[in-house]
Amino acid sequence: MRLSRLIFVVCLFAITACGSFRSFAQTDPLPSWNESRAKTSIIDFVQRITARDSSDFVAPEQRIAVFDNDGTLWTEQPYYSQIAFVFDQIKVMARQHPEWKRRQPFKGIIEGDIKSALATGQRGLEEILAATHAGMTTEEFAKSVLAWNQTAKHPRFHRPYTELVYQPMLEMLTYLRSNGFKTFIVSGGGVEFMRPWTEKVYGIPPEQVVGSSGVVKLVSGKDGQPRLLKTAKVEFVDDGSGKPVGINRFIGRRPIFAFGNSDGDLQMLEWIMAGNGLRFAGLVHHTDAQREYAYDRNSKFGKLDKALDGAVVRDWTVVDMKKNWKTIFPPDH
Amino acid sequence: MRLSRLIFVVCLFAITACGSFRSFAQTDPLPSWNESRAKTSIIDFVQRITARDSSDFVAPEQRIAVFDNDGTLWTEQPYYSQIAFVFDQIKVMARQHPEWKRRQPFKGIIEGDIKSALATGQRGLEEILAATHAGMTTEEFAKSVLAWNQTAKHPRFHRPYTELVYQPMLEMLTYLRSNGFKTFIVSGGGVEFMRPWTEKVYGIPPEQVVGSSGVVKLVSGKDGQPRLLKTAKVEFVDDGSGKPVGINRFIGRRPIFAFGNSDGDLQMLEWIMAGNGLRFAGLVHHTDAQREYAYDRNSKFGKLDKALDGAVVRDWTVVDMKKNWKTIFPPDH
Repeated sequence: MRLSRLIFVVCLFAITACGSFRSFAQTDPLPSWNESRAKTSIIDFVQRITARDSSDFVAPEQRIAVFDNDGTLWTEQPYYSQIAFVFDQIKVMARQHPEWKRRQPFKGIIEGDIKSALATGQRGLEEILAATHAGMTTEEFAKSVLAWNQTAKHPRFHRPYTELVYQPMLEMLTYLRSNGFKTFIVSGGGVEFMRPWTEKVYGIPPEQVVGSSGVVKLVSGKDGQPRLLKTAKVEFVDDGSGKPVGINRFIGRRPIFAFGNSDGDLQMLEWIMAGNGLRFAGLVHHTDAQREYAYDRNSKFGKLDKALDGAVVRDWTVVDMKKNWKTIFPPDH
Repeated sequence: MRLSRLIFVVCLFAITACGSFRSFAQTDPLPSWNESRAKTSIIDFVQRITARDSSDFVAPEQRIAVFDNDGTLWTEQPYYSQIAFVFDQIKVMARQHPEWKRRQPFKGIIEGDIKSALATGQRGLEEILAATHAGMTTEEFAKSVLAWNQTAKHPRFHRPYTELVYQPMLEMLTYLRSNGFKTFIVSGGGVEFMRPWTEKVYGIPPEQVVGSSGVVKLVSGKDGQPRLLKTAKVEFVDDGSGKPVGINRFIGRRPIFAFGNSDGDLQMLEWIMAGNGLRFAGLVHHTDAQREYAYDRNSKFGKLDKALDGAVVRDWTVVDMKKNWKTIFPPDH
């Protein structure tokens, strides 16, 4: 065998090996999904927009996928995790605020009487937000979020909140990225509450997280160094019609793939589907009271009513959590 | 020679070849830069933060670099390109607005008497902004920017504005990206005026462009489809103290590398340098009246005064355009 020929054979072997490995890896990109219409629709969409010879082909730089967070990528029951964070922060901060024991909404939160705390309405919510989300630098806030993630446990599952993410959705994020997609979060939650951990948990870096925000001010610290101070003023609510607006503001182009789970995602899904070419809209329907939660039209958090009707009419993909997902959360180590 | 050994030799050869190619390609990553302190400081910084065994090593995901646009990546004289765009749009739109011939600030713009147009002050500017940047969808606006790019020529260089970008800075963007950096624009210019072309011209995708913006509203079109309508209300001015705020809002972490050219960039540079670890701040100093423009402390556009003093005191890198750059613009084809 001549050298050149041998090199050719070696190369061929290498290419074949890589090819086989690839087909093997691609056999089931979504192993936690049961065979279903939902699963097929996702894979079919990805295959069509990535096939170079397809009329549905989409150039890699246009492969933008957006995901709601609460209820789409992680659990939002019995209430949004950010509310649990706020309550826990109030309890910790109460040590420095003895007056809170006699004053709503703080009194109610400290005593676990959420109902009486929430009875203070808008004024109370603003005070809670000001106490827990303002008056510190952006970096101090990020640290407090990470510290909370380390210790806080979900009341029912007794696991850190960042472990209560949906394994099937993690697989979908990976699958999309391995097909050239850039994945973004577009959530009604606070952007600074998510950014400290989304890279580690979802593989989504801070700059690909769009969310609600408060006004941040540049100030001079005691050391004369500039820092960014969080204020209590609401700047942007990334929910409902705010989602298409937020996507335009932060991403600057219309995604071709979107997933949500509630009426707050409806306008985002409608706007995305109104673009040209093949597009994908999906909803997570929480139907699994045993392994997670079952809720839709009457839920306080993540109400899914109009969007569910809309999905049926428009033939969007609706994921039936109970039927379509083999597992809900990643394994508990 | 046994097969296994031959494969080993082939592999070794391949690795060596790749290595040689790499060193060759890396000989001069900034060929349009004359040997200078500025050039050395850039390369030195990149080498230090990418060397795994260096105490200055920065993980790839933290390698965020931000660039001002006007005067840093492209020409901003005799006035910002966006002003040229606005004037040209007014002239085109005037055909549908015969009343503009008798009404300032439009009259002045149409007649080329900019001074009398600008004499209308804030009221005039708002009317101009409302006429040219509002009342259309975001997609229609993007199209008008691209159409303008196709035909508009710079008054002195008679080339499209998007060709009047700085070749040495293009090389720097490429060099940083090839070293794992994610490059962003952080400009006082309108974000929707830049996003349609930054990917093609700078290799920077729309979602990595931070800029000033107007309020955008989700509305229902005649066909019942949702669309995003630009309004005349100013939402965010990404200049001065707005730049650190904009970076925090859009990127969500503090960059380690920043380049600007004017006092509007000073607070961004100060904030970036106030972070931990090795950091880089650079300024483009326009010193080349012959090949481009020479201006600093007294310029109407891109005034460089306090930031120049600050750079000297803090030993930031100041690029002397005339001395440090071999070429200014990419070749004219």
